[in-house]
Amino acid sequence: MPQRILFRTILGAVLRSCRQEAGLTLRQVSREAQVSLGYLSEIERGQKEASSELISSVCRALGLKQSQIFGDVATQMALSEMASDFRLTQTN
Amino acid sequence: MPQRILFRTILGAVLRSCRQEAGLTLRQVSREAQVSLGYLSEIERGQKEASSELISSVCRALGLKQSQIFGDVATQMALSEMASDFRLTQTN
Repeated sequence: MPQRILFRTILGAVLRSCRQEAGLTLRQVSREAQVSLGYLSEIERGQKEASSELISSVCRALGLKQSQIFGDVATQMALSEMASDFRLTQTN
Repeated sequence: MPQRILFRTILGAVLRSCRQEAGLTLRQVSREAQVSLGYLSEIERGQKEASSELISSVCRALGLKQSQIFGDVATQMALSEMASDFRLTQTN
C-alpha cells in the first residue's frame, strides 16, 4: 500500500519553505508567533498536528496570508497525488 | 478586533458543501470514512480540529482528492480575508 498523503506533512514542508524564503530562523518565528521552538520544529517536520490558531499565528509571523499558505498546500498536495498515481501505475 | 479566520471553520464549511454537492448524508460519510457521526458533525461546524488522517478518510468517502478540498479551502480563505479587510476599511 502506498504511503498515505497527509495534510500535516505537506503543511510542515510549506511552512518551512516559506520561513526559509523569508530568511527567518525557527527561533525568530517561534518568538514572533508565541509558539515554543520545539513544537514549531515538530510542526515543520510534519510530526504534530497544528491547531488552527497556530497556523494563523505562524502565517502572521511569516508576513503571509493564510490563503497563500493553503494555496501552496493545495499545489503541493496535487503534486504528491500525481507522484503517488504515477508510482501506482509503475507498480501495477 | 475582527474575528480571527480559522482553518477549522473554513475546512468544515468546505467539507459540508462538498458532501451536500455529492448528495450524501452525514451518516453515509461517517460510515464510509469510519468516523463517528458526532465527531464528523463537529468537524463540519468548525468546532473540532480534524486530524490529517480524518481529512484523508473523509475526502476518500466523498470521492474527492485532498488537493481539491485544499484548493477550495484556499479560495474560501482568500474570500474571508477580503471580506475581513473590507470590514476593517469600513470601520477605520
